[in-house]
Amino acid sequence: MRQRNKPWANDYIAGHSHIAIQNPKEQRGKWSKLFGNENPIHIEVGTGKGQFVTGMAKANPDINYIGIELSQSVIVAALQKAVESECENLFLLNENAEDLTDLFAEGEVDRVYLNFSDPWPKTRHEKRRLTYKTFLKRYQDIMVEEGEIHFKTDNQGLFEYSLKSFSEYGLLLTFVSLDLHSSEFEGNIMTEYEEKFSNKGQRIYRSEVKFRK
Amino acid sequence: MRQRNKPWANDYIAGHSHIAIQNPKEQRGKWSKLFGNENPIHIEVGTGKGQFVTGMAKANPDINYIGIELSQSVIVAALQKAVESECENLFLLNENAEDLTDLFAEGEVDRVYLNFSDPWPKTRHEKRRLTYKTFLKRYQDIMVEEGEIHFKTDNQGLFEYSLKSFSEYGLLLTFVSLDLHSSEFEGNIMTEYEEKFSNKGQRIYRSEVKFRK
Ligand SMILES: C[S@@+](CC[C@H](N)C(=O)[O-])C[C@H]1O[C@@H](n2cnc3c(N)ncnc32)[C@H](O)[C@@H]1O
Ligand SMILES: C[S@@+](CC[C@H](N)C(=O)[O-])C[C@H]1O[C@@H](n2cnc3c(N)ncnc32)[C@H](O)[C@@H]1O
Repeated sequence: MRQRNKPWANDYIAGHSHIAIQNPKEQRGKWSKLFGNENPIHIEVGTGKGQFVTGMAKANPDINYIGIELSQSVIVAALQKAVESECENLFLLNENAEDLTDLFAEGEVDRVYLNFSDPWPKTRHEKRRLTYKTFLKRYQDIMVEEGEIHFKTDNQGLFEYSLKSFSEYGLLLTFVSLDLHSSEFEGNIMTEYEEKFSNKGQRIYRSEVKFRK
Repeated sequence: MRQRNKPWANDYIAGHSHIAIQNPKEQRGKWSKLFGNENPIHIEVGTGKGQFVTGMAKANPDINYIGIELSQSVIVAALQKAVESECENLFLLNENAEDLTDLFAEGEVDRVYLNFSDPWPKTRHEKRRLTYKTFLKRYQDIMVEEGEIHFKTDNQGLFEYSLKSFSEYGLLLTFVSLDLHSSEFEGNIMTEYEEKFSNKGQRIYRSEVKFRK
């Protein structure tokens, strides 16, 4: 996924600071104000090249989306898509998910999307998985009561791990598909990784969990 | 699965009442006495032709097994295997899982196995699924604190449903494999249905859940 540093990336990002928000920690607790409305806020953690979050923003104008991506050279591709889409309900943040509680106040977010998160298959890297308990705690800290996590992956091991991690955390499993593309699920918007892996014939796994009251 | 009624089945069962226990409700609360030891009791609900429960009984002489099967014409095949195995830690009951609490006292059972349970795919038949909440309640009522349910199936829809049903009931998911026969899981004992479906190239799903303290 990582690409070589693009020298123009910095300039491009700086030139589109109405979408790629600079110093986003200063917006903590004020995201609705910046969006200019009180619509629900859904974030995607590890947005990659942005096909999903841009597609969702287009399909759901009454929801505000924020894509969060660690890698500058990757988020620039998402930014290009966001610019082209001309959506006003979409921001992108070049940030680390470890800092979520510095970016959002308690209850500020309604839903978290995780798509094709890095699997970190080695047990000693468990803590880096975006469905590890410390990340679940961060999602809980910034979400409304009964906030939801929607998770897709092609990675069987990560999906198995995540189902256990969700259960151990006490999350309620409200949806699970072990073969999304053969299911009756409607309105699926594909990510870049999802297109790549499903074209190879891989199954896509998907779950929805929510924090219990 | 259902076979034509075998006229000799009654006689064969009556002739092996040291394994196929007659009037088993009279043994409620006294199963350890009947086994003649205090070893843990594991039951299989919907035993079918008995390959699994017989194999487990052979492999684990320090655990007592009870296979429960509704259909007389099916359980007779299990009884033949049990007789041949000469295991002393195995009983078979020609009973309905709906009557579990009449068969076992509170805390009498340590583990419940469900293997390739009938999927009942229609929503209006949900209540018949052996992982529906009323059945989970029965398992909880007869099991020790933190009792476990071990569940295998080839049926994707039933597995998805069951993961949700377990979660809604508050059960803790401690093991899940979305492709058991390609996993590192050791000591798997196959059931008749498992052999049939895995030979056809179907994936086998497996989970372990336990009741929380
Ligand atoms: C495998 S890619 C998937 C990208 C995209 N979601 C898709 O499905 O096409 C995972 C992405 O998550 C990003 N990522 C990993 N850890 C992150 C973190 N702690 N915070 C933000 N982004 C992260 C990576 O930089 C990478 O772009
Ligand atoms: C699909 S077969 C699977 C048999 C076996 N476990 C295997 O994997 O080969 C399901 C079995 O469960 C039995 N069964 C269904 N509902 C039951 C119930 N309520 N109580 C006891 N047995 C039941 C059926 O008679 C049938 O033999």
